[in-house]
Amino acid sequence: MLKVDLATLIGTVAVFIVVIVGMALGGSLKPFWDPPSLFITFGGTLCSVMMSYSMQTFLETFKIAKQAFFTKEEDVGETINTIVRFADKARREGLLALDEDANNLKDPFLQKGIRLVVDGTTQELVRNILETEVTFVSDRHKTGQAVFETIGAMAPAFGMLGTLIGLIQMLLKLNKPDEIGPGMAVALVTTFYGSVLANMVALPIANKLKTRSQREVFTKEAVIEGVLSIQAGDNPRVVQEKLKSFLSPKEREKVVMPGKAKEAQGGAQADSR
Amino acid sequence: MLKVDLATLIGTVAVFIVVIVGMALGGSLKPFWDPPSLFITFGGTLCSVMMSYSMQTFLETFKIAKQAFFTKEEDVGETINTIVRFADKARREGLLALDEDANNLKDPFLQKGIRLVVDGTTQELVRNILETEVTFVSDRHKTGQAVFETIGAMAPAFGMLGTLIGLIQMLLKLNKPDEIGPGMAVALVTTFYGSVLANMVALPIANKLKTRSQREVFTKEAVIEGVLSIQAGDNPRVVQEKLKSFLSPKEREKVVMPGKAKEAQGGAQADSR
Amino acid sequence: MLKVDLATLIGTVAVFIVVIVGMALGGSLKPFWDPPSLFITFGGTLCSVMMSYSMQTFLETFKIAKQAFFTKEEDVGETINTIVRFADKARREGLLALDEDANNLKDPFLQKGIRLVVDGTTQELVRNILETEVTFVSDRHKTGQAVFETIGAMAPAFGMLGTLIGLIQMLLKLNKPDEIGPGMAVALVTTFYGSVLANMVALPIANKLKTRSQREVFTKEAVIEGVLSIQAGDNPRVVQEKLKSFLSPKEREKVVMPGKAKEAQGGAQADSR
Amino acid sequence: MLKVDLATLIGTVAVFIVVIVGMALGGSLKPFWDPPSLFITFGGTLCSVMMSYSMQTFLETFKIAKQAFFTKEEDVGETINTIVRFADKARREGLLALDEDANNLKDPFLQKGIRLVVDGTTQELVRNILETEVTFVSDRHKTGQAVFETIGAMAPAFGMLGTLIGLIQMLLKLNKPDEIGPGMAVALVTTFYGSVLANMVALPIANKLKTRSQREVFTKEAVIEGVLSIQAGDNPRVVQEKLKSFLSPKEREKVVMPGKAKEAQGGAQADSR
Amino acid sequence: MLKVDLATLIGTVAVFIVVIVGMALGGSLKPFWDPPSLFITFGGTLCSVMMSYSMQTFLETFKIAKQAFFTKEEDVGETINTIVRFADKARREGLLALDEDANNLKDPFLQKGIRLVVDGTTQELVRNILETEVTFVSDRHKTGQAVFETIGAMAPAFGMLGTLIGLIQMLLKLNKPDEIGPGMAVALVTTFYGSVLANMVALPIANKLKTRSQREVFTKEAVIEGVLSIQAGDNPRVVQEKLKSFLSPKEREKVVMPGKAKEAQGGAQADSR
Repeated sequence: MLKVDLATLIGTVAVFIVVIVGMALGGSLKPFWDPPSLFITFGGTLCSVMMSYSMQTFLETFKIAKQAFFTKEEDVGETINTIVRFADKARREGLLALDEDANNLKDPFLQKGIRLVVDGTTQELVRNILETEVTFVSDRHKTGQAVFETIGAMAPAFGMLGTLIGLIQMLLKLNKPDEIGPGMAVALVTTFYGSVLANMVALPIANKLKTRSQREVFTKEAVIEGVLSIQAGDNPRVVQEKLKSFLSPKEREKVVMPGKAKEAQGGAQADSR
Repeated sequence: MLKVDLATLIGTVAVFIVVIVGMALGGSLKPFWDPPSLFITFGGTLCSVMMSYSMQTFLETFKIAKQAFFTKEEDVGETINTIVRFADKARREGLLALDEDANNLKDPFLQKGIRLVVDGTTQELVRNILETEVTFVSDRHKTGQAVFETIGAMAPAFGMLGTLIGLIQMLLKLNKPDEIGPGMAVALVTTFYGSVLANMVALPIANKLKTRSQREVFTKEAVIEGVLSIQAGDNPRVVQEKLKSFLSPKEREKVVMPGKAKEAQGGAQADSR
Repeated sequence: MLKVDLATLIGTVAVFIVVIVGMALGGSLKPFWDPPSLFITFGGTLCSVMMSYSMQTFLETFKIAKQAFFTKEEDVGETINTIVRFADKARREGLLALDEDANNLKDPFLQKGIRLVVDGTTQELVRNILETEVTFVSDRHKTGQAVFETIGAMAPAFGMLGTLIGLIQMLLKLNKPDEIGPGMAVALVTTFYGSVLANMVALPIANKLKTRSQREVFTKEAVIEGVLSIQAGDNPRVVQEKLKSFLSPKEREKVVMPGKAKEAQGGAQADSR
Repeated sequence: MLKVDLATLIGTVAVFIVVIVGMALGGSLKPFWDPPSLFITFGGTLCSVMMSYSMQTFLETFKIAKQAFFTKEEDVGETINTIVRFADKARREGLLALDEDANNLKDPFLQKGIRLVVDGTTQELVRNILETEVTFVSDRHKTGQAVFETIGAMAPAFGMLGTLIGLIQMLLKLNKPDEIGPGMAVALVTTFYGSVLANMVALPIANKLKTRSQREVFTKEAVIEGVLSIQAGDNPRVVQEKLKSFLSPKEREKVVMPGKAKEAQGGAQADSR
Repeated sequence: MLKVDLATLIGTVAVFIVVIVGMALGGSLKPFWDPPSLFITFGGTLCSVMMSYSMQTFLETFKIAKQAFFTKEEDVGETINTIVRFADKARREGLLALDEDANNLKDPFLQKGIRLVVDGTTQELVRNILETEVTFVSDRHKTGQAVFETIGAMAPAFGMLGTLIGLIQMLLKLNKPDEIGPGMAVALVTTFYGSVLANMVALPIANKLKTRSQREVFTKEAVIEGVLSIQAGDNPRVVQEKLKSFLSPKEREKVVMPGKAKEAQGGAQADSR
């Protein structure tokens, strides 16, 4: 169900290759390895994340980051096809006929919606429960993004703090202006680490989590509309028309009416179940 | 249907001429050509965009940029004239009479609205479907803008990262203060590239996409109001009055009532179909 | 109907006097005149505005700026007096009696509202049409502000780009550290231009356009409330009480009831028509 | 009715003492007195405020600043006690019985609400009028805050502009690197003024005005709820319960039921009238 | 009821250890102890907070900070179990049967809600009172966050002001360029203090307060939904289904139906009372 998000993976590998090659073209890589600077920048940033969120959220940082590298294989078109088929069946055989089909659904959100409908929950309550869940999921996603936005804001701050510390110590030890150059170089390495952590790791991950979340919330809203339409006993044609607005023009071609599908595609429909 | 957006095209060509002429006035252009700096700034920015969005969005970056240079020739006044004519016809001959006219429409959004109305879809559902579509279009536009805003934010960040790398390497190699100048010059070229990519390309494109999207959404909202008015069987005069609020005072002069148009303009009305 | 906005005019003249006097107190004005720097900063900023907006908006830049220097002489108190008088007349003589008075109105928005009411448009449609118009006007104002906010953001960016170019070229040509000072001075002039254009021209104009727009939208909302009250046949006293909430305590003193006005002010009321 | 806001007053005096003492500890205060720098920073900032707002708002700048140093002695608990007492009286003696009491009220907003209720205005209109007034008051407050936020943004901008001017003039006059230090010191004084004006005066005042406004709007919303409850003839107990949600747990202890008050406090209730 | 928030505590201790160790690795800690710099940065920041908020809020600064280090042991799952049990009891024995149970509740918000319901308050008023209270609590939390965000913004500003003062005084006293280094080091210490106060104390505390507040408001909203469901006499199953949407998938497992609990867990249910 999970597959690698190639864009994040390739992007991350490539950005490090680009910067390291760029560094090698300009000179030695050696000055960029400085453990005390690493310690201040990464340690300080991690501590400030720990202070900012609950211990549980902090411990899940890597798990959240992992979400940016893996993606659920969600095919909205297929989900819509399923909803339209359900609407068709519900009109012909009644809502209770969906009971068994619901058990075979892979999408737990759609499954929950269908079960609520089958259980005879009121329309208002179904909407209420599903929308509260979407709000909750969206809030949890926002916390995940916020963690990486905090890293993206704190890493440069600790990078500059480290450079400030290095500068102050260096400036006081100096006797000759010729030593300013190398001393400043060492001090600047913490700023470099802060910039790398923010721009090459944290901010793109925060962006990807945001992009992903928007898509997921949008899909869930389509499912809510669909479930409510099934409950209302809408014509499958109407359900399909309604849900197609949630698709891009390209994706719309894949959405088929149950009847047509049976005639025109035959076995293909079996796959999409 | 697409024509070149002269403002974007002339602006882009002119801004590069301005900066290159400005550079030539101040001295040689040669120091501004530095492949390793180009590699870090452009490569790093591209990778971080890849990390931030889906692979599909990333691959469409150039296609999205193209949208800023081409514009759909949308004449809101003409669209409103068409809607008013349809409202007139629908009142005289019934909604079904619009079936054939809908097929000749160039604007797919208006066409979809008219077809829904002709098919006898309920008022609420027509609004629901059309508004979901506007939300979807607007969301897609926002992703496009976000890509170029990310480029506009990441290009200076990688520019400064490159300068930081250059500075650190240069400061460590130095023996004489006299070499600080030329060394810093080379390091600053990456900052220059980052600023060029952000301010002369990415941010203006993001701005243009935003301006364009606002206009398109506004027009689509006028179409929704118009379609719902046709369905409600409103007086064409009322429809016209309602839609004219979506026009600037200048554009309003072009909107004509069907009856008046026939008398006063004759052949001109045929053109506007 | 238009009069000079003294605050903008005096402010603009004064800020240039302040800065030029401040410059003259510190030394020569001569180094601040540098055509290539002017060319990069102003040319680059103009081009990026052209790229960001439609050609039509770009060509109206100066026209929009002019709006910050001139103001419509809008007296909200007088507008409210007129609405209360109309409410009084409508209750005594019927809505149709307002037909002729509407033609003499100077404020086109109030005129449009009264005409819609006289024409027998439904309450909901009147609100719909007038509010769409307010939204449209507000959107157009926002575009105007956005143009000057873009100038305010782009001018410092091109100023720094010019300084970067100057610095790189200067640093490479140097042989002696003594030349760093004058060379850097020349490079900094572009930053100076960018700061002048942003802080002394563009941002204050954007601010003024925003202040102006908020006031205008607020007034139009009062007019909408008033027109709908007239249509609903509200008691003129109630209309007055409702609209007085849109005034500051000072302005409220100028609002008078039609009856009282006739008795207490006589001829003065004739003027306010 | 107005009393000094000790937090603002003490804070302002103390921050200047802190900074001046800090300066004296580090060396001479003399270099920080530089009339041309003062002229550019303060003059430029004032002019840009004049350009940004209406002449009337500009002239009220000091009056608005004064509001941050004085506070209305508003006791929300007492206001709520009054409303509960009114609700009690209205239920026993009818709404008209409040006519006389309304005249003795110190809070003009509550007075206006009670009068509207006594005059028999409809529920919807009372809410409409009072909420429009709250919106208007809140908008006026926002303009006041905006003026000081503009000062807080413009002062550093003009400070840096002055430093830029000083730097350019100084760099061109130099012959020896030894003169860079003192020359830069003079140029930096404008940046110092800009920072003082923004961080020690304008931004804290803007913050205080914002804090004050939020509190006032919140109190006015409690009054609206109370007035509408009186009009609806709600049980005084219910009114009290409703309004207590607007108080912090500490303040709630001061709120008493009319009946209980008479028994338990006697004369104390007379004071609170 | 209060327990230490380990994330904040460990994070705070660790971030200081990290930075001090990082400083010790780079050289002496001595130059970072400079009382006049401390005085300007901390004193200036405190004064500006005093100016920005009411005296009462200012005096509570430490109390607010303490909230970031301690947490209420709120178990949403348990609260939901309680609500479901109440819904069950209310259906079987009537709303009045909850009177006694309400007295034993630890959560004052849920207690207030149940009491309002037992007292026979109307549905609309219960929602009104509870939501006003949530708004009030959320507003108070926002003030707390705002105080630490102000510290986080003002500390670097006063840090830079102190550095500016130090630089100006140092630059004027200099005779030899060799002294620039040590002089600048001393001046930079205030910037260091500002950065420490903002990034290692104020901003993480503001973040934590925000995270905590969002969670608390979310829980209170679940309580409101639950209380209204009890009042409406909803089926306990429905109440449970509704409230489970407020939980993460992990937390949902702990929620049990009253009937099942009695059978399956026996004594465990007694604990959760």
